Amino acid sequence: MENKTFPLSPAVADAPVLTSQILLNHWQGHRELTRRVIEAFPEDKLFTYSIGGMRPFAQLAIEMLTMAGPGVRGLVSGKWDSFEAVQSKLQSATTKAALLKLWDESTDEINEYWPQITPERFQEIEKVFGQYEGPVYWSVMYFIDNEIHHRGQGYVYLRSLGIEPPPFWDRK
Amino acid sequence: MENKTFPLSPAVADAPVLTSQILLNHWQGHRELTRRVIEAFPEDKLFTYSIGGMRPFAQLAIEMLTMAGPGVRGLVSGKWDSFEAVQSKLQSATTKAALLKLWDESTDEINEYWPQITPERFQEIEKVFGQYEGPVYWSVMYFIDNEIHHRGQGYVYLRSLGIEPPPFWDRK
Repeated sequence: MENKTFPLSPAVADAPVLTSQILLNHWQGHRELTRRVIEAFPEDKLFTYSIGGMRPFAQLAIEMLTMAGPGVRGLVSGKWDSFEAVQSKLQSATTKAALLKLWDESTDEINEYWPQITPERFQEIEKVFGQYEGPVYWSVMYFIDNEIHHRGQGYVYLRSLGIEPPPFWDRK
Repeated sequence: MENKTFPLSPAVADAPVLTSQILLNHWQGHRELTRRVIEAFPEDKLFTYSIGGMRPFAQLAIEMLTMAGPGVRGLVSGKWDSFEAVQSKLQSATTKAALLKLWDESTDEINEYWPQITPERFQEIEKVFGQYEGPVYWSVMYFIDNEIHHRGQGYVYLRSLGIEPPPFWDRK
């Protein structure tokens, strides 16, 4: 959680910068880019290649998938399986095609559940996966930021394999 | 720019998820983490270490700095120097201490200029650095996302150097 505050005057503090619609498009734009990063990996490297003892990119993508569909569904319903249980189920994807299929299903799942997050709900406190407590908007940002963070690591894997990653600024 | 849309009903589309205050704290929380990543690098590695032909982390941090203070100042004033000109001036930082000093000045600069972004301004179209056209909120998100993306790459550099990076979830 972010504890430090940089207080703004009431006249500007509550200006709505990102609406629900903007944030949904923003995330799905990022998710399309991440999909292209998955695609850019050679099949074997996706599941095995590692630098500095870090997880292969498929494992990072499975972490993203754990937060994506199940995350948004939980934010709507308030019902959660443990993070580990959800993640371990998704680990059944052991080919690039299976991973991309999960990715696309997850895209649909986000689009299905996101509209059910009410304006009030975004500001409520929720214990995500029964573990991580904070406002709903904070968890959504965590899901997105975590994807950008790990995808950036995928860029290093690809570059070190001599593969040009898709451009970061290109969100279809 | 993100072109694809996943249309929400009017009842939820405009729900303000992130206000100006929340987004400022969010970014400054990320920036404190990035500061700790800079600190975690050994002095020489910060300016020289590279994987797959990518830029050393100091150069990535200078790119972040280019967008940070000068970015927010430009979003307020509508006046821009070219990205290359701003970046090249910041490249005068050739020690870790100089880079961290720029980082802290940039933190203050963001806190100084951010409150001058009016609620309307966030939705206006601006040609950032005279080059990149889009809504002001979109550019702000680009600055933040770009930092998360490149910082994630710094994590790989650190891990491959055998150095444990600060935890991603820890935003002071």
